[in-house]
Amino acid sequence: MTKNTKVNAAILIIGNEILSGRTQDTNTSTLATWLNSLGVKVNEARVIPDIEKTIADTLNVLRKENNYVFTTGGIGPTHDDITAQSVSKAFGLKYEIHKEAFEILKSYYKPGEFNEGRQKMVWMPKDAMLILNPTSGAPGFSVENVFCLPGVPSILKSMLGGLKNRIVGGEPILSQTLSLKTVESEIASSLKKVQNQNQEVEIGSYPFFHAGKLGVSIVIRSENQSKIDECSSQILKFVREKKIEVVER
Amino acid sequence: MTKNTKVNAAILIIGNEILSGRTQDTNTSTLATWLNSLGVKVNEARVIPDIEKTIADTLNVLRKENNYVFTTGGIGPTHDDITAQSVSKAFGLKYEIHKEAFEILKSYYKPGEFNEGRQKMVWMPKDAMLILNPTSGAPGFSVENVFCLPGVPSILKSMLGGLKNRIVGGEPILSQTLSLKTVESEIASSLKKVQNQNQEVEIGSYPFFHAGKLGVSIVIRSENQSKIDECSSQILKFVREKKIEVVER
Repeated sequence: MTKNTKVNAAILIIGNEILSGRTQDTNTSTLATWLNSLGVKVNEARVIPDIEKTIADTLNVLRKENNYVFTTGGIGPTHDDITAQSVSKAFGLKYEIHKEAFEILKSYYKPGEFNEGRQKMVWMPKDAMLILNPTSGAPGFSVENVFCLPGVPSILKSMLGGLKNRIVGGEPILSQTLSLKTVESEIASSLKKVQNQNQEVEIGSYPFFHAGKLGVSIVIRSENQSKIDECSSQILKFVREKKIEVVER
Repeated sequence: MTKNTKVNAAILIIGNEILSGRTQDTNTSTLATWLNSLGVKVNEARVIPDIEKTIADTLNVLRKENNYVFTTGGIGPTHDDITAQSVSKAFGLKYEIHKEAFEILKSYYKPGEFNEGRQKMVWMPKDAMLILNPTSGAPGFSVENVFCLPGVPSILKSMLGGLKNRIVGGEPILSQTLSLKTVESEIASSLKKVQNQNQEVEIGSYPFFHAGKLGVSIVIRSENQSKIDECSSQILKFVREKKIEVVER
């Protein structure tokens, strides 16, 4: 079977705390790196507030435009955790107690500790599939192509391993980085020519200021290694002609 | 003049490097914090790739739904910097040399250094207003309610000071944080009651694990300090009843 080379996803970060600037989101970067390694290209990411209609409406756009949607946040025990009810609304599914999740959390907590707040975390869209949580018990869940993960970065990370087998990616997206001791304007026109001659690779140019070093990282991305190699050798050709130093980063 | 209490904005992060996971975005948090301090509520943030049609189409949605839109990224000298041409397309404006920007960069660089790559940075939508750049010369620009800033975080930050007077915010959004030595599930039902009795404040609950301390931060947000105070005293009432310790963070 040939893998589909175009598998894509959207990331939906749910939480007022990101939009107020209080919390620095790191889940987009974690999910994007992980998805790219599975051959899933991230088309877009959005951050939206804890408003049921906004969550449901946004999900209904993203889940139709993408092979996968990953949400983070809003699956805890408090009143502002409304992802599960919003996903139910988006799919027109009943929002109800998930029996398997109930059993998991009942045995996770000590007798008497599985209180009302914690029981809220087992309310999910009907027939949701669980995503197990090896860190803190409360599972995430998926409905069709929508996967709902928690907002706490360390917990989210710990849940990706168990999810890997449920994501069917395309060809892995390969990349090569060339870091150069130069400034972007010195290489802009040569780089543009190389991009024009190599339409099937994506060439990105990123200035860096790191540990006293100033330079430009050229990132070449494609599913095809030989196309990356060809593009890379064309770049190195003009780099040598311009006597630009290639540096370690 | 009474300030409009509902001034809102969207943040649009432009760049493949964020969606590949290569770069951790921090501009959303910087802009969100700054906008909140000016009384501008951030409705949503999006990360999109360096594709002209995607940028133009997304801008045309966001600029109609929000008082302001702030973009970051894509205004440098290389082929993958296509924000200015995409904004021109979104507004149906000519993409042309901006005379004032040309003069600024011409005098910024030494004679002979204002090369083709650098000259690309003075191509903008017709009649764009400049946003001065005290760090590295090349200005950002605005068209109507859309403000285009660079992607490099330190340069972006240095440009916000000069932009402040061009943003008319509403009432500042005030907040108070109570950090508690507890877990969310212990306070979830009491907190929900307080939220239900105080519909005009927004109460967020965020677990934290920091420097060996584990707890929950309750964030109360409103334009009205007395409503925050009332809400806060109701929360502190149940906190005392439950013998939960209030901690420093």
